[in-house]
Amino acid sequence: MNKPQVPDFLKNIRVVLARPNHPGNIGSAARAMKTMGLSRLYLVEPKVFPSDEANTLASGAVDLLEHATVVPSLAEALQDVTIACALTSRRRELTTPLSTPRQTTPELVARARDGEQVALVFGNETFGLSIEEVEQCNRLVTIPGNPDYFSLNLAMAVQVMTYELFSHTGVDVDYLRADSDAAALGEVEGFCGHLEQTMDKIGYFRRRNSERMMRRMRTLFNRAGLLREEIDILRGFLKQVQRAADGEVRRDAPGPNGE
Amino acid sequence: MNKPQVPDFLKNIRVVLARPNHPGNIGSAARAMKTMGLSRLYLVEPKVFPSDEANTLASGAVDLLEHATVVPSLAEALQDVTIACALTSRRRELTTPLSTPRQTTPELVARARDGEQVALVFGNETFGLSIEEVEQCNRLVTIPGNPDYFSLNLAMAVQVMTYELFSHTGVDVDYLRADSDAAALGEVEGFCGHLEQTMDKIGYFRRRNSERMMRRMRTLFNRAGLLREEIDILRGFLKQVQRAADGEVRRDAPGPNGE
Repeated sequence: MNKPQVPDFLKNIRVVLARPNHPGNIGSAARAMKTMGLSRLYLVEPKVFPSDEANTLASGAVDLLEHATVVPSLAEALQDVTIACALTSRRRELTTPLSTPRQTTPELVARARDGEQVALVFGNETFGLSIEEVEQCNRLVTIPGNPDYFSLNLAMAVQVMTYELFSHTGVDVDYLRADSDAAALGEVEGFCGHLEQTMDKIGYFRRRNSERMMRRMRTLFNRAGLLREEIDILRGFLKQVQRAADGEVRRDAPGPNGE
Repeated sequence: MNKPQVPDFLKNIRVVLARPNHPGNIGSAARAMKTMGLSRLYLVEPKVFPSDEANTLASGAVDLLEHATVVPSLAEALQDVTIACALTSRRRELTTPLSTPRQTTPELVARARDGEQVALVFGNETFGLSIEEVEQCNRLVTIPGNPDYFSLNLAMAVQVMTYELFSHTGVDVDYLRADSDAAALGEVEGFCGHLEQTMDKIGYFRRRNSERMMRRMRTLFNRAGLLREEIDILRGFLKQVQRAADGEVRRDAPGPNGE
């Protein structure tokens, strides 16, 4: 399977950092964005920018910092945006709808796909978003978490929110899956028959309920999701057991590869 | 609404960091865990531990570092574990099932709830998990992301995975929602009637199709999810419009509060 492409519409989703204090967080946020296919970073009145620290923490995502848009106010960052999500962890006396990233992202993805501009707005590390900043947004988004320790770092919040977005793009990890050849039920049954016959031949069922034993074995091997190659190994082993039982090999005899 | 509790069964889910190089990552991982209600950290052969750097980055999560279990091998960290998820971003020639955090977590939560011990296993920052380490796990988990830049920082991966877990615990952000009193459809309709009557009274419908206009207005206000308080403000405004049209107030007159 080929490596999938990052969907083009993700360029319609921007991350806006409002008044970030620490240059390191700008770099880490850029890195987090890029891991999830986002590229457009807006910085509202960053305390320090550009900086070596941001570049270092951005790792391979320095290109996002180079193309970042620095603006003097949140309003400018949101000018052409239709949906702006204010990320907040505090209870707000606002009637703007509050939802989780999982509830919000399908709409964001749908709108970005339609060509609308969408913004994820993150506040200052210490103070969060001001009430005036939140009021410029039309969604409130809160990342669920430990009610007694809600201390999500700025870049971590960017990572979680962009992960959630990416998970709704339909780009899966299929291309990383190893090729494997699942055995059909008939093949599993063939193996179980071979196992039963072998157990019987070497006297394993004596004083045991063979029917019950085999039911357990069938359940196990059906559940295990056997692959063809695994069945080949197991059946090879069973053949060797039968040969050993027939006295054709000594128990400590070297196999065909060991001679 | 009261603040919810972190579910007790989360103590059955541990994070295992295998051979972490950077003390800062240990601290950041602890902080990430605590934001998502996890508390049990295992460290396999950490290069440096304990350290001031880890404590600093752990912020309010130093308690997790103090109670961390340091072990000499991954096998020891997994001794009593039934499901161990190896976090990996590389294609592996292994037949262990590969899935995303979203696909995996419902099972992890169910098993932890049943009292089983579950582990999330993260590899070294530079080399990831070795093949021998992956083979000790019975699940492969890959966080989906940009196929051309898969450079998720260790603590970021812990944050995403634990966020995903927490999102399946059923603890929502409801308790953070502002109390609001949604208007019923009859109240919205009452307001729309009031609006129509006001528009009519001041001659807004002259030369305009009133039926079409009002259909647009009804659609808008039904979509907007009006709150009772908002209807009160709007109807107060309409009353004042009618009074102004009756010549009862001068256009620049101060209102009752401004006198």
